Amino acid sequence: MKRRIAVVVTARPSYARIKTALSAMEANPGIEMSLVVAASALLERYGNASSVIEKDGFRIASRVFMLLEGETPQTSAVTTGLGIVELATVFENLAPDLVVTIGDRFETLATATTAAFMNIPLAHVQGGEVTGSVDEKVRHAVTKLADLHLVATQRARERVIRLGEDPGRVFVTGCPSIDLAAEAVRDGANVFDPFAFGVGPTLDLSGPYLVVMQHPVTTEHAKARDQALESLYAVRELGLPALWFWPNPDAGSDGTSKAIRWFREHEAPPNIHFFRNFPPLAFLRILNRASCVIGNSSVAIRECAFMGIPAVNIGTRQQGRERGSNVLDVSHDRGAIEEAARSQIGHGRYPSDPIYGDGKAGEKIADILAEVPLDIGKRLPY
Amino acid sequence: MKRRIAVVVTARPSYARIKTALSAMEANPGIEMSLVVAASALLERYGNASSVIEKDGFRIASRVFMLLEGETPQTSAVTTGLGIVELATVFENLAPDLVVTIGDRFETLATATTAAFMNIPLAHVQGGEVTGSVDEKVRHAVTKLADLHLVATQRARERVIRLGEDPGRVFVTGCPSIDLAAEAVRDGANVFDPFAFGVGPTLDLSGPYLVVMQHPVTTEHAKARDQALESLYAVRELGLPALWFWPNPDAGSDGTSKAIRWFREHEAPPNIHFFRNFPPLAFLRILNRASCVIGNSSVAIRECAFMGIPAVNIGTRQQGRERGSNVLDVSHDRGAIEEAARSQIGHGRYPSDPIYGDGKAGEKIADILAEVPLDIGKRLPY
Amino acid sequence: MKRRIAVVVTARPSYARIKTALSAMEANPGIEMSLVVAASALLERYGNASSVIEKDGFRIASRVFMLLEGETPQTSAVTTGLGIVELATVFENLAPDLVVTIGDRFETLATATTAAFMNIPLAHVQGGEVTGSVDEKVRHAVTKLADLHLVATQRARERVIRLGEDPGRVFVTGCPSIDLAAEAVRDGANVFDPFAFGVGPTLDLSGPYLVVMQHPVTTEHAKARDQALESLYAVRELGLPALWFWPNPDAGSDGTSKAIRWFREHEAPPNIHFFRNFPPLAFLRILNRASCVIGNSSVAIRECAFMGIPAVNIGTRQQGRERGSNVLDVSHDRGAIEEAARSQIGHGRYPSDPIYGDGKAGEKIADILAEVPLDIGKRLPY
Amino acid sequence: MKRRIAVVVTARPSYARIKTALSAMEANPGIEMSLVVAASALLERYGNASSVIEKDGFRIASRVFMLLEGETPQTSAVTTGLGIVELATVFENLAPDLVVTIGDRFETLATATTAAFMNIPLAHVQGGEVTGSVDEKVRHAVTKLADLHLVATQRARERVIRLGEDPGRVFVTGCPSIDLAAEAVRDGANVFDPFAFGVGPTLDLSGPYLVVMQHPVTTEHAKARDQALESLYAVRELGLPALWFWPNPDAGSDGTSKAIRWFREHEAPPNIHFFRNFPPLAFLRILNRASCVIGNSSVAIRECAFMGIPAVNIGTRQQGRERGSNVLDVSHDRGAIEEAARSQIGHGRYPSDPIYGDGKAGEKIADILAEVPLDIGKRLPY
Repeated sequence: MKRRIAVVVTARPSYARIKTALSAMEANPGIEMSLVVAASALLERYGNASSVIEKDGFRIASRVFMLLEGETPQTSAVTTGLGIVELATVFENLAPDLVVTIGDRFETLATATTAAFMNIPLAHVQGGEVTGSVDEKVRHAVTKLADLHLVATQRARERVIRLGEDPGRVFVTGCPSIDLAAEAVRDGANVFDPFAFGVGPTLDLSGPYLVVMQHPVTTEHAKARDQALESLYAVRELGLPALWFWPNPDAGSDGTSKAIRWFREHEAPPNIHFFRNFPPLAFLRILNRASCVIGNSSVAIRECAFMGIPAVNIGTRQQGRERGSNVLDVSHDRGAIEEAARSQIGHGRYPSDPIYGDGKAGEKIADILAEVPLDIGKRLPY
Repeated sequence: MKRRIAVVVTARPSYARIKTALSAMEANPGIEMSLVVAASALLERYGNASSVIEKDGFRIASRVFMLLEGETPQTSAVTTGLGIVELATVFENLAPDLVVTIGDRFETLATATTAAFMNIPLAHVQGGEVTGSVDEKVRHAVTKLADLHLVATQRARERVIRLGEDPGRVFVTGCPSIDLAAEAVRDGANVFDPFAFGVGPTLDLSGPYLVVMQHPVTTEHAKARDQALESLYAVRELGLPALWFWPNPDAGSDGTSKAIRWFREHEAPPNIHFFRNFPPLAFLRILNRASCVIGNSSVAIRECAFMGIPAVNIGTRQQGRERGSNVLDVSHDRGAIEEAARSQIGHGRYPSDPIYGDGKAGEKIADILAEVPLDIGKRLPY
Repeated sequence: MKRRIAVVVTARPSYARIKTALSAMEANPGIEMSLVVAASALLERYGNASSVIEKDGFRIASRVFMLLEGETPQTSAVTTGLGIVELATVFENLAPDLVVTIGDRFETLATATTAAFMNIPLAHVQGGEVTGSVDEKVRHAVTKLADLHLVATQRARERVIRLGEDPGRVFVTGCPSIDLAAEAVRDGANVFDPFAFGVGPTLDLSGPYLVVMQHPVTTEHAKARDQALESLYAVRELGLPALWFWPNPDAGSDGTSKAIRWFREHEAPPNIHFFRNFPPLAFLRILNRASCVIGNSSVAIRECAFMGIPAVNIGTRQQGRERGSNVLDVSHDRGAIEEAARSQIGHGRYPSDPIYGDGKAGEKIADILAEVPLDIGKRLPY
Repeated sequence: MKRRIAVVVTARPSYARIKTALSAMEANPGIEMSLVVAASALLERYGNASSVIEKDGFRIASRVFMLLEGETPQTSAVTTGLGIVELATVFENLAPDLVVTIGDRFETLATATTAAFMNIPLAHVQGGEVTGSVDEKVRHAVTKLADLHLVATQRARERVIRLGEDPGRVFVTGCPSIDLAAEAVRDGANVFDPFAFGVGPTLDLSGPYLVVMQHPVTTEHAKARDQALESLYAVRELGLPALWFWPNPDAGSDGTSKAIRWFREHEAPPNIHFFRNFPPLAFLRILNRASCVIGNSSVAIRECAFMGIPAVNIGTRQQGRERGSNVLDVSHDRGAIEEAARSQIGHGRYPSDPIYGDGKAGEKIADILAEVPLDIGKRLPY
């Protein structure tokens, strides 16, 4: 009998971090995969991952609306509670043998709690990393609720084991997002006009250009607006064509969004085009030809390590995450951001670094999930 | 300005494990304490802790009904989700500087998640222990969400630190339940007739007698009924007067409850009286004069270590919990239970062992909570 | 294409009031029926309707755990809110063309609200009646949310129309519960020993006997216990063998339950056997041979009108409900109850009265639901 | 003892319809008022009514985040369910003697259900009206759950009575929004520059100008975008300065919002300024000097009747609402809208019509709520 696996995707970036594993699970004869799409992954405001998912050929088994309006710490809590209530009904109907949750967004704690309390074995993709903000609490709490760990790096594996998990249940697979990066590197042709999307001027991408992704940092959410403005001014000052990708629905993203709206209205930057919704592969092809990536997204640290794209990482959000030589860290200061970017652009492309995966993570994950013995009992070994 | 501390109590046994700390917080001039009573602590079926709490002189700031009927793994999940939704509103209204959660019952994950996501510092009482069942996952997940740890034993402290917590934020206080045990030992007079409560025959407690507390083990809940019957037959066979205290609302307790009802109806045991609701101090006074305690409650391991009461611990529920010399472990087998109980009764009282506390935990907890710097940022140190 | 109809059953008595319509829908080639079982219908404490439903050969498409423990007015509200959240996910997955809700229990407002807000046409079975308590508010609010009305009596139809509903969308079908009563009358042989169920003495049913069903009245729930005691004493006094059926999970049923438990423990009535779980048809066969039915259940007014069984109706719960000549109304007074019962027993069987249906309601309902045009727009005509 | 009254405000327009009653309740010595602010009234995207409320000097007793992102029919249902869960906790804490709900937005059913199930008397402001869409179902369902009715017009009172409500509990008070209109008429000076708010060109308001308010119609939400575009083109064609106020968070408002964003981006209308957040009184002063109001808001029918402002009402949203002679009805057709607007502008101001109130509704409501006997029992009289 096929093993029934339910994968819960709650946001556009999480989809990119599981997509090749989903394909590999569908191709695996030992797996019957059900895809649950939830939270911001269903919403146009956040890039409507669900329509991308369907265009990619996946069937959505269940849609879970759970994201509260308001983006305050309180709504993060209520969203998570609501998610548990709804996912319990979904899991009851799907009756999976195994649930998969991805990453460290706050909603993943809903998936993890529901599976753990319903005695369904839980696999966690991308545990064992270290960053700032509430994600840090969520990630390790999910590790303690999970029964199986599919981590991106060797150091992540060591951390999960130090957290008390059974070494026999912690697997280094690399991150599936690197599989997509590998695909974009292999077939780099950009078949598609980004300026059919987003708002702002049409830009010339035949020469050097920048990619920007900046998320609010949850526990400092009052400062999100000011931090975004520092980056906006720095990028305008750099003058190069810049493609700016909109943040995720963390508590506080309204601050970042407001900064962007205000900046567009009052400063009308001639070199920045803003995007919300973007097919992952097209994004990676654009990234693959960028002169520098700026912001605080983990993409700069993971995908760009593999691709060798120079990166300027701003602020504390990625603090503690392992990084290759392609990353320069700066604070939220427009001068510092500009200077670091100029230095990185001058340096040019770095050699590829497989720290976050060698491009075959999806297959490895599917093979492990199809074969590994399932068990929900565990006990701290120390 | 006083520090505002909200303590969430979700079950009768948790109340016993925080009561002396509540009194000490009320007496502490630096603390303004709000008591939130939730879940089974509000319900008559589970001993109506809320009326005990009020009789003890505490004011209840908010009552949160969240426990779903049904006691299945699915209802544990829904209860937790619902708890998060309701506690978010409660915390928004109380606006505490610090939230306190106790122990490892599944609902404590609701308290912990809500506080963590609302950026309210979280203190966890009684982390760092090791047991079987889903409690194990809950306990350590709560540790990873908490900012402050008040643990019962030295080994618990070591474990919490190995889980990556800052040693400066992990305090050994002992367990407040031992404070109550100390009080019962100091003033052992039983001023009160237990047989005004519960159902079953009136028993003679002037000679040797037994105390029984058996909980279902969540991840084996189909077996709960059979396991309870083994104990019921063993206790009837022992023949001594026995006071049997009813289980908590874990998933599966219906199996245990059904066993008890069936046994009473069909076997009418002449030596067993069954209780649901019992004032903690009165319970401890009874416990303090018992010849042996039987079952799988942690009381046998904690309070009875301090008191020196011989204990027969059945099955896997307390596996991994540190124990003194007063405990004999057996499997769910009526013969083995009976034999171990006879041996323990023959042995008689053990010397007091301060492993779980010296009787001053409540005061220590209040002092720490009043003074310790509050902070919600943390990061795995390895 | 078949019309997809989702029927939501939230309690054992509601199942009896829809069962023959479910069978007729399954037999109807124009209907694809999905059965959603929710709330107390899933719980052993309330008669576990779901296992009866499956034994009757129906497949359950979705199970919705939503009933909070506690049975207070607050838990009724939370249960309803939770039901809406969970039913939204269920309806999203089932994608029905039409939702059917039954009766006037508080949870039916969850079904009605969810369907109305999701723009799914809603059929309400058993609107237009008048009774006491919060059911009165629920019933007419559901009428105002529903698009289609399948009522039991001609007077109910008139009331629904006066409430502003389109006469072309209000159909008198009779109540499906009467179909079961008709079946029990046609084939009256009791093939089955009731005393294999429930608790209390085995009774002789070859001569005259009583059936008792008493529910708490929600808005007076503090009095539920006293009211139940009046009935308990009256029934003991009457001395005839009595079969007492346990109440539903309304707010306050704990009062009634407690009265029953106390009475059994302290008065050990030799002539009363108490039941919780009973197959509907077996119950009706027992009812069909009863000398008198006592309590405040609508069964006494509906099924017993068709069957001609003498009934003593106590208190305000059925106030306003149309009744035949078989009913004598009394207050919650043990003397009055006893006297009325003696008079009814003396009178003996009444002629059958088709006021609540002629025994073909199920088929009529299925035919209408398969054929009637569906529409969700409506507007008060006055 | 003062009567404790909890008023639940869930949206900016509802606040305008209760504001003068809130002031009158605060001034009334017999009332202790608690204001609960919920749903879109807390959110910046929808005009952040809560900050307006606080600027107006009211204290907010509780904030209830309950609005789900997504604006689909499913999220309306989940929002309502969640609202019930959270309001139950809020009402438990506030322990009001009476709850007040306003109007017919979908979330009002959450307030009404919670109060009714918690046995708290419920007053409904603004029942008995007739319109299109799901509001029609909500409004009359709330009437059936309410115990006290404070209606705007004589015809509304007649309808509520025909719905079976006790005439002694249905009071014509007029609508408090008219009190604000009366204040704006009395003191018409616009002390404040609207163009400090919103987006779009600064306009000349010294001559004739237009006010536009267009909401999506829930049950046709796919068409919301097209309908909004017809109005946008008509208003641009009219050429007069136009102040366009953004819609409410009904299911489908995303369609309307998208139309506005698309139109601004592609057509850059030189005569339209768009607003989201506006102090009610300032809005009314602007309205009071408008040459014509266009759209489907009830403001055109209510406030503008009192003020005598010519109105063009588009589509079915206000169908069935009583109206004065100031209203011209048209379909969603740019030509028809333009023609009707030209005719209304040519006509000029109409005489004041007190159909929706004489400007003293707030005081009347407070007086009734302070004095009327409270009772939760009711029963259909026919």
